[in-house]
Formats: sequence, structure tokens, C-alpha cells
Amino acid sequence: MPGDVMGKPLAISMGEPAGIGPDLILAAYAARAELALPPFCVFGNTEFLAQRARRLGIDIPLASVSPDEASSRFDTTLPVVEVGGPVPDTPGEIDPLAGRTVIAAIERAVAAVRTGSCRGLVTAPIHKAALYHAGFTHPGHTEFLAALCADGGAPRRPVMMLAHEGLRAVPLTIHVPLLEVPRLVTGQAVIETVRIVHHDLKHRFGIAAPRIALAGLNPHAGESGSIGREEIDIIAPAVAQLAAEGIDVVGPLPGDTLFYPPHWRTYDAVIAMYHDQALIPIKTVAFDEAVNVTLGLPIVRTSPDHGTAFDLAGTGRASPKSFLAAIRMADAMTRERDA
Amino acid sequence: MPGDVMGKPLAISMGEPAGIGPDLILAAYAARAELALPPFCVFGNTEFLAQRARRLGIDIPLASVSPDEASSRFDTTLPVVEVGGPVPDTPGEIDPLAGRTVIAAIERAVAAVRTGSCRGLVTAPIHKAALYHAGFTHPGHTEFLAALCADGGAPRRPVMMLAHEGLRAVPLTIHVPLLEVPRLVTGQAVIETVRIVHHDLKHRFGIAAPRIALAGLNPHAGESGSIGREEIDIIAPAVAQLAAEGIDVVGPLPGDTLFYPPHWRTYDAVIAMYHDQALIPIKTVAFDEAVNVTLGLPIVRTSPDHGTAFDLAGTGRASPKSFLAAIRMADAMTRERDA
Repeated sequence: MPGDVMGKPLAISMGEPAGIGPDLILAAYAARAELALPPFCVFGNTEFLAQRARRLGIDIPLASVSPDEASSRFDTTLPVVEVGGPVPDTPGEIDPLAGRTVIAAIERAVAAVRTGSCRGLVTAPIHKAALYHAGFTHPGHTEFLAALCADGGAPRRPVMMLAHEGLRAVPLTIHVPLLEVPRLVTGQAVIETVRIVHHDLKHRFGIAAPRIALAGLNPHAGESGSIGREEIDIIAPAVAQLAAEGIDVVGPLPGDTLFYPPHWRTYDAVIAMYHDQALIPIKTVAFDEAVNVTLGLPIVRTSPDHGTAFDLAGTGRASPKSFLAAIRMADAMTRERDA
Repeated sequence: MPGDVMGKPLAISMGEPAGIGPDLILAAYAARAELALPPFCVFGNTEFLAQRARRLGIDIPLASVSPDEASSRFDTTLPVVEVGGPVPDTPGEIDPLAGRTVIAAIERAVAAVRTGSCRGLVTAPIHKAALYHAGFTHPGHTEFLAALCADGGAPRRPVMMLAHEGLRAVPLTIHVPLLEVPRLVTGQAVIETVRIVHHDLKHRFGIAAPRIALAGLNPHAGESGSIGREEIDIIAPAVAQLAAEGIDVVGPLPGDTLFYPPHWRTYDAVIAMYHDQALIPIKTVAFDEAVNVTLGLPIVRTSPDHGTAFDLAGTGRASPKSFLAAIRMADAMTRERDA
């Protein structure tokens, strides 16, 4: 029932209050009409958001509502789903009490999407160190979401995609030391990741016949085995198996030349073997405009491709480009899913 | 005596005859006047080059000369320093007999620069596999040059720099499997590399007070030790020692954000920890225009930042941008050195 789903708001988790996430949410709401943004509601603390809005000189009404009321209120009021507090408005300064609210906002927003009260999730940036005392032990935001969606069971493999204007880069391994990367590049990891990317490109990006490229692990993709054998022993056999399943995937190709635009434009997604191999090309060409998308979850989740930027919090100088792109991408992906 | 040195030609080694190197040399010579190229001589086989010129429809006279005659002949004749043969003109097809000539061309060109008959070296691309039967056992072109300049002793650390419009990226480790990178990122490697880069930025690029940045090895430069400890245990202490020597070096900084232009423009060079970390940003933004420069050698050496491109050899369709940029950079660097 697309009509029903499309009437639902996007859920936005507030993120770290000492960072720029709240600023971007408030600025997006203030510009909702001119930017034709879809309805959303913020999971966070209303009083804190009102204080930050005053600090920024953004004059908007806020109301504590339930997710189900959010869309109908969106035209006139920023809908906030209250998750607790208090949260002090101290830009750039972490408050030890705020961590619990930041985590609860994510938990509640995920639950709202999973129960159908909201249609997709956009997360504002968190600062992991600020959450440790509140019991946060996950390697990153994405891994936390995967754990939440596992309902206490073993999390599915969360697949992180960075997207900007047709370039979709996926790191096979994410927040692990480089020393550990080679042993994590397994046939199973390659196969699971490609299957997830292929599935989500079809069903959430509307690409009927996705073409996927894999980068090699080693310089020059190992150069026929003379600079490492993982390409021959691990990646190539996995590619052969995936091709036998009917997935259009090529590689392993040399990582350094794969992100030259005429090369990556041949593919709907490029899967890199590790964090910097995927993120360097994205951040080199689209530092503040790319969107971080999590594939392989039962929900649509996007986020801006930047951190909390403590030095810009409360100043009004943070660039909204990536955050707005994250909202638009979540909007498009949820329309696609239900089209 | 700058006047004397500037009268000397640049030495260009012919490179793999089955590839595009000879095509680019011939095209550069044909356009020498309109491009205002400095005098150069080719180390290679005259008859082969004449055949390739005919194949390409490039009508230029060639003459076998000594390096000392090259500059005075350059206006009217492509000067070739004969190093042996025969070399068949078979674009795209490796000839087992040509390897010895390819290697000898490099050896003779290096010798000519070291004795002062030529002022700098530009190397056309080689294809390592084509050289194995001729006894080539080096990991790459750059390492071969380092060995040649060692005069039979232990080679100095060759430092590879990829340069394009102010972005100068240096991989600390080069053609090694990713698995081996962490153990090669030693304090000694960091210190030696930064010293070489700092020295050559001053003396060959004319930068009075070079500013150098180091990337971290791990994602987010290890994020204070939570994603790997090499930044804390190895790189940061090396940076402290270099700073104590008066070298302006910062880092380790997160590799993924360091190559965003407003970030790298803060530095005269960026040192990455491994091959793809340095080459991805260069090849993403300047695929066919960057120059490969070898620092730390007793000679100036540049080369185009691409391979032999067998499929384009003999067609006239290979882009000359990187090769021409390599000639210009060698010209500028040798003027700087002797200024």
C-alpha cells in the first residue's frame, strides 16, 4: 500500500547534541518549503532543540508528538518524538548525561521505522567517545543499527555505501585496523556483500540489472599474483560463484584506477576491500555532499557523510548539503521499495 | 654552472616497444616547437623508432647520435642514442628479444645523467613481465632505478611521488601486498621518507619551507587507538622526532579526508602509508595527467603515470598529457636543482 507508506514521515535521530546534527535538522525544517522536503519527525529532546533553535536564530515552532501525528503537523510545526533528557545546549562540549538520550533516540527511531510508523531513517552524526559511558560498545553507528535490527540475535552483515551522483562505493570491511583487513577479506564476505548490494540496488535503487565491480586488495590487484595472492585465491573464485548465480559482477580490478569517473561510471556500485579504499575517492570529490547508506538492513537508513564537527556546532556555518542529500535519498529509496 | 647543465638534453628511455611509450616520444618530438619542449634524446633503437614513426604517419628525421650531440641536433632531428636491437615493431605483442634493449636503454640513460651528459631522466613505461626472461627481478621501474643508482651497493630508499597541479602524493610503501604494509610502516621508514621528501621539495621543487602531512594507516587514523595503534606507537613518535629536526610535518591525519582539495592544498606534499592510499586520489582526479617522480635518487627522474596500454600502441590514440607533463616537470626540476 504505497499510499499508506508514503504518508508516513521519515524518522531523524537527533545525534550528538554537542555537534552539528541538531543544527542541520533545524535548518532543514526551516527550509522545508523551498526545498520541497518530505515530512519528517525528530527523535530527540524538544527543549534542547528549542534552545539550539534560539541560539541559531531559527524561529520555528516545535511540538512533542507521536510519529503517527508527525506528517499532519509537519507543515506548521517541527514534530519531535520525545525520548528523554535533560540535554544541555552546549555546542562543542560533550555532556556525560546526554549519551543516554542520543542512544535512545536511535533505538526509538529504528523501532518506529520497523513498526511502520515511519518509512525510513536518517541519522544525524554521533560521537562514539561521548557514548561510551552510556554503554555504547559498537565499532560505529552502522554496526549499532545492525545490532538493533537483529532483535538480540546475531546481526546481519551491515553494508555501508557512500553515494554521490551515481558513484556508489562500498567498503567490504569497515572500522577495523588495516592489519586485520586481509584475513577479513574472505570468500564468504565477498559473496554476502555482493549479494546484499545487488539486492538493494534492485529493490531500493530501482536498478533492474545492476552491474557491480570489485576492487582488488593489493596494489594493481596483485598483478597476477606477484604482489599478493588474495585476488587469485579468494576474490576471483567468489566472483565466479556470484557470476554463476547470475549476478553481473567483475573484478578484482586495480583499486587505484577504478575510481576514475569514466571507469566507475561503467558500474552501478564499486566494492572496495577496506575503508580508505572506498572513502578516499568519495571524500576527495564530494567531501560534504555524499550520503552514507546502510544496505542489508530491514529498514532504509541514510546519514550524512560527515561527523559531529564540534567546532561548527551552534554557529550556523555547517554545510547542510550532505544532510539534505541524505533526506532526499531516504525519501527516494522508500518510494522505490514500495513502488 | 647552470648554463652548461641547461644546454644538456633530457634523457628519455624508450620503454616497452609493444606499448605506447615510443608513440608518445615520437608525438612529443613532432610537436616540440609548438609545445616549446626542451631538447631531449631517446635511448633506444633507431630503426624500431623509425618504423613506429612510419606506422603512426609521423614524418620526422631520426639520427643516431651521442648524448653530447643531442641538443644541437634537436631542432631538426630526433636524436637517438643507440643501445642495441633488433627490436621488431609489433604493437601490443611482446617480443622476447626486446627485453634486453628495454633494460639497456634505462641503464644507459641513467649513466648518461649521472655522468652529466644529460640533465634528467624521463622514462617511458615498461611492462615487467616482458622483461623477466631478460633477468629483470625488481618490484618495479622505480626500484630498478634505485638499484642502478646504488652502484652495486644497497639501494637508497626510492621515494615515489605522484604529482598533479600542486597535489603531491607519496606512498610510504609501494609494490608490496597489503598484508605486509603494517610491518613496513616503521619509524625508520617514516623518518627516512619524510626527510627525502622535505629535502627534494626544497632542492628540486624550490619550496623554501615545505609543509608535509602524513596520513594514518588505519581508518580515521586509528581513532585514538580504537581502530589500530600504529598511529600512536609508530607514526606519531616519528613525527615528533622530525619536528624536533625542524621539519614542518603534521599527522597522522585520517587518510580519507586528507585528499579533499581544501585539505591537501594546506600541504606541499602528503605522505600516504601504502600504494592505493596515495594513488586513488591522484588517479581519481587526474587519471591521464599526473606525473610519477622518483625522489631520493642522485638524479632527477620523472615518468608518465600510466602503463604501456598495449591496446593503444601504434594507433596514435594514446593521450600524451602525462608524458608531456613528465617532460616539463623534469625540465623544471633540473632547472631548480641548478638554479
